[in-house]
Amino acid sequence: MKLKPAPELTVSGWLNTAEPTSLADLRGRIVLLEAFQMLCPGCVSHALPQARRVAEHFTAHGVAVIGLHSVFEHHQAQGSREALAAFLHEYRIAFPVAMDAAGDGGGLPRTMAAYAMQGTPTTILIDRQGRIRRHSFGAVTDLALGAAIGALLAEGDPGPAPDGSDPAMACTPEGCPAP
Amino acid sequence: MKLKPAPELTVSGWLNTAEPTSLADLRGRIVLLEAFQMLCPGCVSHALPQARRVAEHFTAHGVAVIGLHSVFEHHQAQGSREALAAFLHEYRIAFPVAMDAAGDGGGLPRTMAAYAMQGTPTTILIDRQGRIRRHSFGAVTDLALGAAIGALLAEGDPGPAPDGSDPAMACTPEGCPAP
Amino acid sequence: MKLKPAPELTVSGWLNTAEPTSLADLRGRIVLLEAFQMLCPGCVSHALPQARRVAEHFTAHGVAVIGLHSVFEHHQAQGSREALAAFLHEYRIAFPVAMDAAGDGGGLPRTMAAYAMQGTPTTILIDRQGRIRRHSFGAVTDLALGAAIGALLAEGDPGPAPDGSDPAMACTPEGCPAP
Amino acid sequence: MKLKPAPELTVSGWLNTAEPTSLADLRGRIVLLEAFQMLCPGCVSHALPQARRVAEHFTAHGVAVIGLHSVFEHHQAQGSREALAAFLHEYRIAFPVAMDAAGDGGGLPRTMAAYAMQGTPTTILIDRQGRIRRHSFGAVTDLALGAAIGALLAEGDPGPAPDGSDPAMACTPEGCPAP
Repeated sequence: MKLKPAPELTVSGWLNTAEPTSLADLRGRIVLLEAFQMLCPGCVSHALPQARRVAEHFTAHGVAVIGLHSVFEHHQAQGSREALAAFLHEYRIAFPVAMDAAGDGGGLPRTMAAYAMQGTPTTILIDRQGRIRRHSFGAVTDLALGAAIGALLAEGDPGPAPDGSDPAMACTPEGCPAP
Repeated sequence: MKLKPAPELTVSGWLNTAEPTSLADLRGRIVLLEAFQMLCPGCVSHALPQARRVAEHFTAHGVAVIGLHSVFEHHQAQGSREALAAFLHEYRIAFPVAMDAAGDGGGLPRTMAAYAMQGTPTTILIDRQGRIRRHSFGAVTDLALGAAIGALLAEGDPGPAPDGSDPAMACTPEGCPAP
Repeated sequence: MKLKPAPELTVSGWLNTAEPTSLADLRGRIVLLEAFQMLCPGCVSHALPQARRVAEHFTAHGVAVIGLHSVFEHHQAQGSREALAAFLHEYRIAFPVAMDAAGDGGGLPRTMAAYAMQGTPTTILIDRQGRIRRHSFGAVTDLALGAAIGALLAEGDPGPAPDGSDPAMACTPEGCPAP
Repeated sequence: MKLKPAPELTVSGWLNTAEPTSLADLRGRIVLLEAFQMLCPGCVSHALPQARRVAEHFTAHGVAVIGLHSVFEHHQAQGSREALAAFLHEYRIAFPVAMDAAGDGGGLPRTMAAYAMQGTPTTILIDRQGRIRRHSFGAVTDLALGAAIGALLAEGDPGPAPDGSDPAMACTPEGCPAP
């Protein structure tokens, strides 16, 4: 099976970041791309708090968390930059959030369409080479998402040396253990 | 840093398994060893349900979950095989559980002492080569435990082939994706 | 201490009801008035689900649940009828919701000001005679809110008869017990 | 319908209290009688934490919380005073707990039989006159239990005076409001 390259984000703007970013800029890092809508209950109660936990736990270990506001309904209520900014402020969401660019003729937003997402929330994991490694619609457990992130983190890790020493254990997401 | 070999279990009996097992028998599998006491609230509310989730999610992917009943207090209440059997029955715990052998002169149970555990719950991850890779006293988040398991699973995984294909993705803990 | 009459609602519109209502119309019923904002996290995660539980449990016993959307910030994002309608639709909120009328010169919404609310969520209980019996800013436990509602329900209840029979037990919020 | 008098407790001992007590001693107070077994998961995860919340919230308002350890299975594991004492210690349960007296010939414990309980947890509310007002097997919501307690508290409450003043509001379970 071929791994698919993650399509570049097509966005109309960014919040929570001074400079626009791109997946190309993030090459070399693992990316959690969390597509949501501010009025989607499953996003608000589950996916966004989970994305925040991932950011707290893994940012220092080379994982970038990016929100993607992919509005495909209730455009008047949630389609404006002001509405999204108010939402991010009230919910204390601090990671960068991109506004997915509107589709042609009222169709799905462009990034959402490029990834063939089925709805929100959609949780996508992209590896250090920019390839899609996980793509899930709906709720994902912390155990499953943690395992997927841990597997990607381990790929960049040379693993235990033949003598049994493990340079990777010098600094794990859980801390830097004493020898 | 040298990885430490996981000391063998020293136990007085087993429940939930027809045959006694050992870490030696489990070589080649990743082992989650969950040390608990049946009257330890943090074990009952957090660590044992988490161990059950790990068993449900990862048993098919080469992870063995083993409970270790390490009684170091309230021996009269929780020290008997009958008490433990009643507890496992009522809490619907189905993975194998070993009874840690009593220490000399009322000291810590033997396996608990061999691992220098600080108390219960203690969550220990052992890799396919039988080495301790994680040792935590107290509550661990699902995200952190998932990441640690995912990293160990990935070690046995050849990783993406040079042509970009990924045989490992053919079957992940989340399922076997279509090509 | 004098009980204060509950000020009448001053609103710019209603949702989830074919006809506008008023506290005067609801005299004879106990009223739970839940003031919220659609972008207030404590309202979304705690107060509105609690109001829904109250509606499910007590509507048949003479308790009316009324939402009051009292927007005092982020007017552009949450000030429109369309935004509120989208929110109520997505969150499956079915009880009637009033839009608090805008205050003069950008001040607090009128009903919010009349009740001297400190913010959202604010949970107000009004008795069958239209008097304020409980006024709380922030999270209220189900146990405390249940007790307050139960006390008001009991007021309209003649209580056990002198012979020890209890006509009220013939039908309680928990059901109609067999004799 | 006649209200049934609550049968007196028939117990083999007490914990968490210097002196044995009885329902007769508690006349004039509302009593929450929580029947449980230390190895009953629904008791440990739901009913006992709820009973503790009731004790914290309502003890100052004339509600007595009494645990009743009604062992009808796993006698060897949970039948001893030592096992119960260890459990109460570990779970930080501070309200008085009675040990239900063993039934004849291995039948149900005596108090459990006298109340015709179906199992554990069973939550029973007894009014100030010693009559059963609520009897529930299984999980009860905080909202429903709160309402039942609030209704009983209100019975001893003279209610609003004809001039509209409410002496009872001077001190409610939620605090003593300023005039």
